[in-house]
Amino acid sequence: MRVTVCRKAHFNAAHRLYVKSWNEKKNESVFGKCSNEYYHGHNYELIVNVTGNVDPVTGMVMDLKDLKDLIKSEVEDAFDHKNLNIQVPEFADLIPSAENIAVVIYNKLVPHLDKEKTLEIILYETPRNFVKYSG
Amino acid sequence: MRVTVCRKAHFNAAHRLYVKSWNEKKNESVFGKCSNEYYHGHNYELIVNVTGNVDPVTGMVMDLKDLKDLIKSEVEDAFDHKNLNIQVPEFADLIPSAENIAVVIYNKLVPHLDKEKTLEIILYETPRNFVKYSG
Amino acid sequence: MRVTVCRKAHFNAAHRLYVKSWNEKKNESVFGKCSNEYYHGHNYELIVNVTGNVDPVTGMVMDLKDLKDLIKSEVEDAFDHKNLNIQVPEFADLIPSAENIAVVIYNKLVPHLDKEKTLEIILYETPRNFVKYSG
Amino acid sequence: MRVTVCRKAHFNAAHRLYVKSWNEKKNESVFGKCSNEYYHGHNYELIVNVTGNVDPVTGMVMDLKDLKDLIKSEVEDAFDHKNLNIQVPEFADLIPSAENIAVVIYNKLVPHLDKEKTLEIILYETPRNFVKYSG
Amino acid sequence: MRVTVCRKAHFNAAHRLYVKSWNEKKNESVFGKCSNEYYHGHNYELIVNVTGNVDPVTGMVMDLKDLKDLIKSEVEDAFDHKNLNIQVPEFADLIPSAENIAVVIYNKLVPHLDKEKTLEIILYETPRNFVKYSG
Amino acid sequence: MRVTVCRKAHFNAAHRLYVKSWNEKKNESVFGKCSNEYYHGHNYELIVNVTGNVDPVTGMVMDLKDLKDLIKSEVEDAFDHKNLNIQVPEFADLIPSAENIAVVIYNKLVPHLDKEKTLEIILYETPRNFVKYSG
Repeated sequence: MRVTVCRKAHFNAAHRLYVKSWNEKKNESVFGKCSNEYYHGHNYELIVNVTGNVDPVTGMVMDLKDLKDLIKSEVEDAFDHKNLNIQVPEFADLIPSAENIAVVIYNKLVPHLDKEKTLEIILYETPRNFVKYSG
Repeated sequence: MRVTVCRKAHFNAAHRLYVKSWNEKKNESVFGKCSNEYYHGHNYELIVNVTGNVDPVTGMVMDLKDLKDLIKSEVEDAFDHKNLNIQVPEFADLIPSAENIAVVIYNKLVPHLDKEKTLEIILYETPRNFVKYSG
Repeated sequence: MRVTVCRKAHFNAAHRLYVKSWNEKKNESVFGKCSNEYYHGHNYELIVNVTGNVDPVTGMVMDLKDLKDLIKSEVEDAFDHKNLNIQVPEFADLIPSAENIAVVIYNKLVPHLDKEKTLEIILYETPRNFVKYSG
Repeated sequence: MRVTVCRKAHFNAAHRLYVKSWNEKKNESVFGKCSNEYYHGHNYELIVNVTGNVDPVTGMVMDLKDLKDLIKSEVEDAFDHKNLNIQVPEFADLIPSAENIAVVIYNKLVPHLDKEKTLEIILYETPRNFVKYSG
Repeated sequence: MRVTVCRKAHFNAAHRLYVKSWNEKKNESVFGKCSNEYYHGHNYELIVNVTGNVDPVTGMVMDLKDLKDLIKSEVEDAFDHKNLNIQVPEFADLIPSAENIAVVIYNKLVPHLDKEKTLEIILYETPRNFVKYSG
Repeated sequence: MRVTVCRKAHFNAAHRLYVKSWNEKKNESVFGKCSNEYYHGHNYELIVNVTGNVDPVTGMVMDLKDLKDLIKSEVEDAFDHKNLNIQVPEFADLIPSAENIAVVIYNKLVPHLDKEKTLEIILYETPRNFVKYSG
């Protein structure tokens, strides 16, 4: 009996989309105002979905309190109120697009889950733009 | 041509998470304040997804009015403004976790659907905690 | 320059609407299924609005972190995952209708605010039913 | 590394559900007030999901600006503030149910995407009724 | 002790903005695509706010079930799945703008409320456009 | 007949809360992680409410298309994807708190409205923190 448990979380961050090896003009032609050199920012809404077997005694796939704490230590403490380009090591050489942020979050969380569980990350950059990644 | 039709519904209920064979201390250590002996409650938001073939004449997978009525008779009438632990027979010996509630709803609805259709249940316990089950 | 700052919070609780001096039949005729003797519950969404002058140096009406902490200590710690009728002293002799819960929250918060500030409470009992109180 | 990028859009339209070869009585018995001869309407919320490989340089599956423009030219310009039955050619002989609208949108968008990409359409007819189609 | 109780409701309708005494060209220059002769439509979200004294026994400003029934008989039954211009008598000679719809709803509801109560209508025509009217 | 028309808009920006005349330590003690020297950011949701008389011919308080265009030229073009501290002149010597941003938006919009109209600004910095200002 496989059930998916889902937990919403939230962080605010500044970022900028640009490719270091390109000049400003090319960055602006590809990324538009998202490449603004002084940064802009978002309220990122994160949904973490964990699929696993329901424990027949507790009725739980996993303790959502544990999932909440894991998201806090791995994602919120690392990303919230940060400049992703400058202050988050994973993006030192990786462009902090929504796609890449979702992949980085997936890679940070998956080692903490039991092998039998599967993980999906949904990340809203704005209420109208969001991405999904499941490994 | 398989399309999924989705219907949102809603019920309010009281519940408590505890394992009868455990003492209060163990229940509290596992379930925290969710094991409060006087109960707490939620506005459960339910999304019922039915996937099937589109009828070429009516353009419908199934009449959403029928789906709405089915959810009302099988779920809302049974769960709404109830104490799940005391007043809903399915939880007499089953812990009313979000996971188990979703599975119970699935099992109540699926016999009423045509064999060719598949069913998914999404249940929000709070705006930040929710579960999915598809058999 | 008067500005209103608003903070959303959340608590889950069980409650029951009934008048002790009435019999079950009258309670049910007035409150319907809300008078269920075994309780039901809600995810209460709370919005606390504080209106005051903007500090010319900090640009703030009040520190929203302080408001968040005040809501936590006065409301969330007192109401969350509780049975309002049994476990919250303010409702020992007061029916825990949404209207009365909003008034109680107002009365708990207002002594902690500067005299120059005004307070409004908005309380969602369900996404479709909510109340407002401003003293 | 397959990631899904999602874009929300919106259009308002009038429509009516009825089968031309049926009489009014049969249409009303099947579609109820949705078959009202003078039409009714909806705010359709559309979510377009495109799954593809992340470009290692730009960090993007596709430019969301391009996806936004594609949705505008193919869907919004064609459907927004229109009477679907009368003014949108795809529904000249096809009932504009939510299911069929989703399929039509899918068929209009998919030729514009790279072969390696997959597409899913989610269409909300009301906040409580919605459909999904992925080819 | 004045408290406001709020109830959300919903109806879907077709409409068209045009002034009968103007020609098509002038109508289109003022109302744009909202004047489309074949109509378009919306999911109207309605919030009805009633302010009054809290009954010291029941803890209620008014029974929200009564308010829900009043909204159903006066607004939903009259407007839902209708063409506002053709099928709702109030708009025979009144343009069904969001502003006017809100005023009409106010005028239909206010005679049913006790004199001591005050009424406010909030009407969403789309998630981004809405109006308020309080007499 | 005074009616309020409301329009939602949206912009993303980076900002930092700090008082230039204070040292880093004092800034951090007052503003916490909001004073991060590398900035963070938000999806700001803006609601602009204009109250005025309904034109008896058009049924409108003002053309919402005009209001949308005004918000675009005065607010979105000026703030969207910008660093508020560095790139928006109004905040050269004014801390870009939500309170101050709302006041600045009010002051930018009000000269464009007829004298008989009144204006209210609601600004969401996050889904849980927002402010209101009406002059």
